[in-house]
Amino acid sequence: MRMEQLVGERFKERPSDCVIDSHALMIRGGYMKPVANGIFSSNPPLVRITKKISDIIRKEMDALDGQEVLFPVVMPAELWAESGRYESVGKELLRFFDRSDSKMVLGMTHEEAAVQLVREYGGSYNKYPFMIYQIQTKFRDEARPRAGLIRVREFTMKDAYSFHTTVEDMEQYYEKVRVGYHRIFAKAGIPEVIDVEGDSGMMGGSISHEFMLVTPVGEDTLAICPECGYRSNLESAECIYDAPAAEKNDVMPELVYTPDCKTIEDVCNFLKTDVKKSCKAVAYQGETSGEYVLVFIRGDLEVNETKVKNAVGENLVVADIQPGHGLVAGFMGPYQLEYTGKILVDASLKGMQDVAMGGNQEDYHFTHVNMERDLPNLVFGDYGKIQQDSICPCCKKPIINLERGIEVGNIFQLGKKYTIPMNMEYLDENSQRQTPYMACYGIGVGRLAASVCEAHHDEYGPIWPMSIAPWQVHICCIRSDVEEVKAYAEKLYTQLQQAGVEVIIDTREIRPGAMFSDADLLGVPLRVVVSPKNLEAGCLEVKSRDKALDEKIPLAEIEDYLKKEIEKRLA
Amino acid sequence: MRMEQLVGERFKERPSDCVIDSHALMIRGGYMKPVANGIFSSNPPLVRITKKISDIIRKEMDALDGQEVLFPVVMPAELWAESGRYESVGKELLRFFDRSDSKMVLGMTHEEAAVQLVREYGGSYNKYPFMIYQIQTKFRDEARPRAGLIRVREFTMKDAYSFHTTVEDMEQYYEKVRVGYHRIFAKAGIPEVIDVEGDSGMMGGSISHEFMLVTPVGEDTLAICPECGYRSNLESAECIYDAPAAEKNDVMPELVYTPDCKTIEDVCNFLKTDVKKSCKAVAYQGETSGEYVLVFIRGDLEVNETKVKNAVGENLVVADIQPGHGLVAGFMGPYQLEYTGKILVDASLKGMQDVAMGGNQEDYHFTHVNMERDLPNLVFGDYGKIQQDSICPCCKKPIINLERGIEVGNIFQLGKKYTIPMNMEYLDENSQRQTPYMACYGIGVGRLAASVCEAHHDEYGPIWPMSIAPWQVHICCIRSDVEEVKAYAEKLYTQLQQAGVEVIIDTREIRPGAMFSDADLLGVPLRVVVSPKNLEAGCLEVKSRDKALDEKIPLAEIEDYLKKEIEKRLA
Repeated sequence: MRMEQLVGERFKERPSDCVIDSHALMIRGGYMKPVANGIFSSNPPLVRITKKISDIIRKEMDALDGQEVLFPVVMPAELWAESGRYESVGKELLRFFDRSDSKMVLGMTHEEAAVQLVREYGGSYNKYPFMIYQIQTKFRDEARPRAGLIRVREFTMKDAYSFHTTVEDMEQYYEKVRVGYHRIFAKAGIPEVIDVEGDSGMMGGSISHEFMLVTPVGEDTLAICPECGYRSNLESAECIYDAPAAEKNDVMPELVYTPDCKTIEDVCNFLKTDVKKSCKAVAYQGETSGEYVLVFIRGDLEVNETKVKNAVGENLVVADIQPGHGLVAGFMGPYQLEYTGKILVDASLKGMQDVAMGGNQEDYHFTHVNMERDLPNLVFGDYGKIQQDSICPCCKKPIINLERGIEVGNIFQLGKKYTIPMNMEYLDENSQRQTPYMACYGIGVGRLAASVCEAHHDEYGPIWPMSIAPWQVHICCIRSDVEEVKAYAEKLYTQLQQAGVEVIIDTREIRPGAMFSDADLLGVPLRVVVSPKNLEAGCLEVKSRDKALDEKIPLAEIEDYLKKEIEKRLA
Repeated sequence: MRMEQLVGERFKERPSDCVIDSHALMIRGGYMKPVANGIFSSNPPLVRITKKISDIIRKEMDALDGQEVLFPVVMPAELWAESGRYESVGKELLRFFDRSDSKMVLGMTHEEAAVQLVREYGGSYNKYPFMIYQIQTKFRDEARPRAGLIRVREFTMKDAYSFHTTVEDMEQYYEKVRVGYHRIFAKAGIPEVIDVEGDSGMMGGSISHEFMLVTPVGEDTLAICPECGYRSNLESAECIYDAPAAEKNDVMPELVYTPDCKTIEDVCNFLKTDVKKSCKAVAYQGETSGEYVLVFIRGDLEVNETKVKNAVGENLVVADIQPGHGLVAGFMGPYQLEYTGKILVDASLKGMQDVAMGGNQEDYHFTHVNMERDLPNLVFGDYGKIQQDSICPCCKKPIINLERGIEVGNIFQLGKKYTIPMNMEYLDENSQRQTPYMACYGIGVGRLAASVCEAHHDEYGPIWPMSIAPWQVHICCIRSDVEEVKAYAEKLYTQLQQAGVEVIIDTREIRPGAMFSDADLLGVPLRVVVSPKNLEAGCLEVKSRDKALDEKIPLAEIEDYLKKEIEKRLA
């Protein structure tokens, strides 16, 4: 490829709408161009990078006996109705009508299509286990696309689906894929990716893992125990609390006038009680059903909305409390509550005594509530958000660390969540009908590219690892107006291409500074500078984009040298 | 790959809904599975075939200095509004709303996206010419999907867009791509593909070519001159007629009562005149506008609806004639017609004398109309459908032959059709603003796979050319229950894989007949039979799927033999 022909514009100024570096650099470097909110066109360098990433993934999937298939982007709604997700998934699922007014959806994931494809094939136990995968365009109608390729609406994804006759087989296979995923990320240049326990969310199933690149610009929060190695997405991290001091509380609940108290902190200040001895209420409404969901939690803690969402089975919005439901906004408490709808009580309140809580009347709170004595029928669950220095659910030490991460992949043990409603069955050794187990495995190709850029860049541009770099060698010809310099650069270009090296050459008659800036934005690992000065000295300058290398190489040795450097970096 | 693990079911019965062989064989061979009308999932053999086809195309595009990019599947309506196609294209363009009620479309072609991507890049004359291409999923909401992968709604397509500063440069480049397309089809196994003049339709521009696989099951009709080589799609073939005999006709038009005459033939029988001396009317309505379009043509000819559609600029439906427009259904003629809307008059009527035509009254016709004398203001155009033995528009001999064909690719000289409305401009050598010329080039990947199958199959299955075959060698192990036979087959399998041969092995303990049937359905070019009898004789049986080859090869020579046969077939 010739730099002067490379489609895409490169420029210096950081676009104002880019909040993270990878987004800014990939726009500045002409890797992509926005077409609509969260929708991009890709230029040749990005196409080359994602192709290499796809090939890395493909190789690993094939090594795991995966078979490449292709599901459609556009699917009939009936297929999603079979699993129940046509109704249960929120607006991320783009629903529309085709010309004959049939309901259709745009594929954001393909569990239903996978089951549909192999439902007959998997009819006998001797076909199991097997895995199918695809690398295909997906569309997810995100409410807030952001951060370039990190959160988009249209994206290329590798999604794989494995099928099993026993839960043990599923678990073993899942573990093999988990390890394979680490090989993929290492090969793509980010071996530092960790896996954490994930929230299964709308995918269903019980166990899932997310693969996280830890970085301050990540949009996920991770709970990590520095001691025992426990790692979880904050969304699914279990919350554990010290058992409350078993002080005796003989005082009965008392309704207290608490004027001008807007927050739980106001109330506790007013009542001169510790916020840790209060109960606060958070009210939601189902996005579709409109039903109220009331969550009670210890006053100093935060509600984990994902846990609440999973408990009620639909997306939630902040409640708009209307009269007539027995709910008094700002003064809700579980004691003497008229409301009879959905109530979730966090385990942080369990066993507490002498608690302050809403009085279910305007400007009134109860004090001295003893949870066990006064509310003996409550059922407790885990709806809290883990915090910095929370107790580790694994080793029980109060040393949880919160970090930010970008999710670059996820894997789910789905069990029979799809195979049961979609009537996938096989005959076992005894000719008995059985339902197979299923697991699924995803990696966003573009997001992975952006994550590698996020992990490996400087202020001048991305520093692509050799394994996914758009080109391997970048020839900068300084002074193309000097005939022998240009001729030498062109000769080297041809020679390297013939040697199978992926090379891009820049022979534009521009200042070296501008040429190097463009090269920095392309982030090719090895740069060869051909200039009058170098040629006079009988050598070429070879620099690596990561600055580790800066050598003068005799002309006769250049091809061998570059090939060895490439090989070293691909190993 | 092992046959016993290959995802997909193969079966014997031809599905009743398959009208063409490639469709039936690709369903029976487990290449794909329908998900909805015109929407399929692909199994591993088809994924492998289309990947090879994509690589053949990619190589040719790169050789033409094409640069691979990627446009989105989902695009904002505004982008299509820029070119005017959001309004002008029919229901094939799937339009929908996203979660924020923005109008979106599913990409069926990407001229607008291509211009959007390079509008800034192409700002200076020194960037030209350049070509960008993508291989991507497209959706076209076909009214009548049919014939398996030949006419689907969702498909993978290679689409390329070239940009030029002069019309000559566009023409020269277009010609290079035309030749390159023939290389692609030859490489994919159908060198017999011809190019014909095409209809530019909704793409716009003047000159276009379609690449056709001539086959009786094709859905396009081609007009071919066996003498001079003229070739055109029937849709765009120009119609030429002998000048009518210049008999003198002094009789003035006469309104004649013609009861019970339903067709033009009835009328001519009744009037005892030649149908070639009559004028018939065909009425359409605009699909969107509802506007009437009246076409007059010589009674023995057919209207070419595509030409009419292009003339009026919208999709057409058969007219439902309502009172009040001056139109009398069944009795319409250009003489003394009250209707003042759109009228198209075919050139076949030009200069005719003594013509019979509708009287614009129920049950009445005019006779003795002299076109020039009585209708001096008519404008004539080409709206006729070329017929068997029509006059060749090129060499003027009445020997046109009609054939059927499958369109496997198309190319269009678009000119400034998109660059003008989308304001794409560059500065020329004199810093003057200019609008670039554009051409586009498409190949449907899946349709090409199906076309190769259609061209190369027998009743037992496809006969894939080596260049796109899912595997190169198929090992059939007869009597896997015999230990040394199985062991030999497995050894050969490993040996060939290590030698870089793409091999599939079948070690199922099934009857040879069933095993060979499955192998026939997979259509792998070379088959090696490992059996007790063969091993005893110290050799293996090698057969080619096309039956040209049937040899016994000594065990020691098998690897070399197969590698040579593969190489020969890839050359």
